[in-house]
Amino acid sequence: MFTFERKANYYETDQMGIVHHSNYIRWFEEARLEMLRAMGLPYKKMEDNGILIPVLGVSCSYKHPIRFDETLVLTLRIQNYNGVRFEMAYEGHSKETGLLSCTGTSQHCFTTPALKPIRMQKHFPRMARNISSGRRTGQSRVIQNTKTPAGLTDVIGKPGGHFFINL
Amino acid sequence: MFTFERKANYYETDQMGIVHHSNYIRWFEEARLEMLRAMGLPYKKMEDNGILIPVLGVSCSYKHPIRFDETLVLTLRIQNYNGVRFEMAYEGHSKETGLLSCTGTSQHCFTTPALKPIRMQKHFPRMARNISSGRRTGQSRVIQNTKTPAGLTDVIGKPGGHFFINL
Amino acid sequence: MFTFERKANYYETDQMGIVHHSNYIRWFEEARLEMLRAMGLPYKKMEDNGILIPVLGVSCSYKHPIRFDETLVLTLRIQNYNGVRFEMAYEGHSKETGLLSCTGTSQHCFTTPALKPIRMQKHFPRMARNISSGRRTGQSRVIQNTKTPAGLTDVIGKPGGHFFINL
Amino acid sequence: MFTFERKANYYETDQMGIVHHSNYIRWFEEARLEMLRAMGLPYKKMEDNGILIPVLGVSCSYKHPIRFDETLVLTLRIQNYNGVRFEMAYEGHSKETGLLSCTGTSQHCFTTPALKPIRMQKHFPRMARNISSGRRTGQSRVIQNTKTPAGLTDVIGKPGGHFFINL
Repeated sequence: MFTFERKANYYETDQMGIVHHSNYIRWFEEARLEMLRAMGLPYKKMEDNGILIPVLGVSCSYKHPIRFDETLVLTLRIQNYNGVRFEMAYEGHSKETGLLSCTGTSQHCFTTPALKPIRMQKHFPRMARNISSGRRTGQSRVIQNTKTPAGLTDVIGKPGGHFFINL
Repeated sequence: MFTFERKANYYETDQMGIVHHSNYIRWFEEARLEMLRAMGLPYKKMEDNGILIPVLGVSCSYKHPIRFDETLVLTLRIQNYNGVRFEMAYEGHSKETGLLSCTGTSQHCFTTPALKPIRMQKHFPRMARNISSGRRTGQSRVIQNTKTPAGLTDVIGKPGGHFFINL
Repeated sequence: MFTFERKANYYETDQMGIVHHSNYIRWFEEARLEMLRAMGLPYKKMEDNGILIPVLGVSCSYKHPIRFDETLVLTLRIQNYNGVRFEMAYEGHSKETGLLSCTGTSQHCFTTPALKPIRMQKHFPRMARNISSGRRTGQSRVIQNTKTPAGLTDVIGKPGGHFFINL
Repeated sequence: MFTFERKANYYETDQMGIVHHSNYIRWFEEARLEMLRAMGLPYKKMEDNGILIPVLGVSCSYKHPIRFDETLVLTLRIQNYNGVRFEMAYEGHSKETGLLSCTGTSQHCFTTPALKPIRMQKHFPRMARNISSGRRTGQSRVIQNTKTPAGLTDVIGKPGGHFFINL
């Protein structure tokens, strides 16, 4: 499980006086990319190495609105991964009120810059193996920043350690 | 069923070279509000009269990316309505290629400006009745612009005709 | 002079109940790209042919706010062009009230995809010549859609006619 | 002088592979509101007390693009204040490369929620006096967070200390 905090900006509100619902989808992306970074898989490096992670789907349930200057605390995790696709789950609370603000999911795959799917198992075996082994442990651990994770080895071609994803 | 066309703007693309996925949620809103207008229920007038229609949830499946300058043709309809909540369904195709681009849903309710739910049946009976009768017909008709629809009567207090929602 | 109309979307408002000021900068872009299209220089084709037109600067003065569902009528023109850089001027009025809403400018150059400046005179002489000749006429004409403008010849390598820019 | 750091989000890029120019205008706002907070004038409290600070104008010069995951370091200051209007100046550098990325300005006034101008001197004398005295010192100091600044007294009716704005 990964935690991400984000204060609502003024330009993210609408005339209903609350954050416009489309912005939660953007916050999910911010949180997801920070989680990837914490897993030792900074998305910028992945893109530089020709791996894109487009969004196949999103969903969001709005429970209690977030207002300007309020902070959303998002917790997120990878809840499904089959070597080709994975799904993220999100849950957001207001830092100020503690109220549940939103729950959501997003689905993703790995592709080339031309948006052709990449079978991670085949082309990035170490990254795929580690994601899988993380899944198999069935344990919920906080993702650690590791300097040279094995997963990144596939991406930037340097030896590394291990990382685990909460499942 | 209602149809809405929208050309992708440059500022809606991201560095993947495609429209950023969050923008489809905004396009759904644009289409939805145009459909309400075509139903004789312009959202601006509803808000002016104290009726808000916040979003309770959204989902979107991305099938084929839309690129800058490409036009998305969205078809949308109300697929559930119980007097308090309703659900919209969306389907988008590229005007240029004909490819299915996205499918999605959004869930809504009616509230006061303080975001308290409004029971339409009780407070706006004519609007509610017409929406229901539209549903009961079970027929799929194109929504007609009627100058003074009965639904709007509830909102702006003038006598009106009939409008039907495709279901 | 070129005219562009744009209705304000709900998601473009902020909690002040007006269109957020940053969106005018986006609307300027929409209008500018429509003007380029009307000049026979669709930006998508320019980019496909390796010509980018990044923004060097923008300014906007806000005179009277635009609100949700209101339509901004933008008039725009190229007011300076020296073969390398050009400047656009914008003026926006509310379609509903006629009130002056905004005035603005944007400055641009032509570059390669790596953002290296392109000297249009040298590499795209016909496009540059036509822009210049348009300027020299000193006349204000509405830009016409011409099927195969000379300017486009430089871009897509086919013979073409003439186009003029209002100055 | 106030400093504000902001990492570029993926959804803020466009297909040119750089942050879309409109987003700098939004970042200026983020930085400005953080500066107001540091001055003891949190904008949320000002709005809650009926003082709005709409934007009268903006300008931005783009010197060197910011890319996804890069951090913009913005320094900003109030460079003009006449009791009714004030102007902010911005300068942004890339944290990673040190390159000058942008310079800009924004102009503002104080208004009621109905967007009627407020003469600060008359209606919020202490806040106005302190802003002026800050100006008169002619010194460049980093704005300190003070728990109960005099300025805020005007707004929320509690006694306070002093704050100074760099000019």
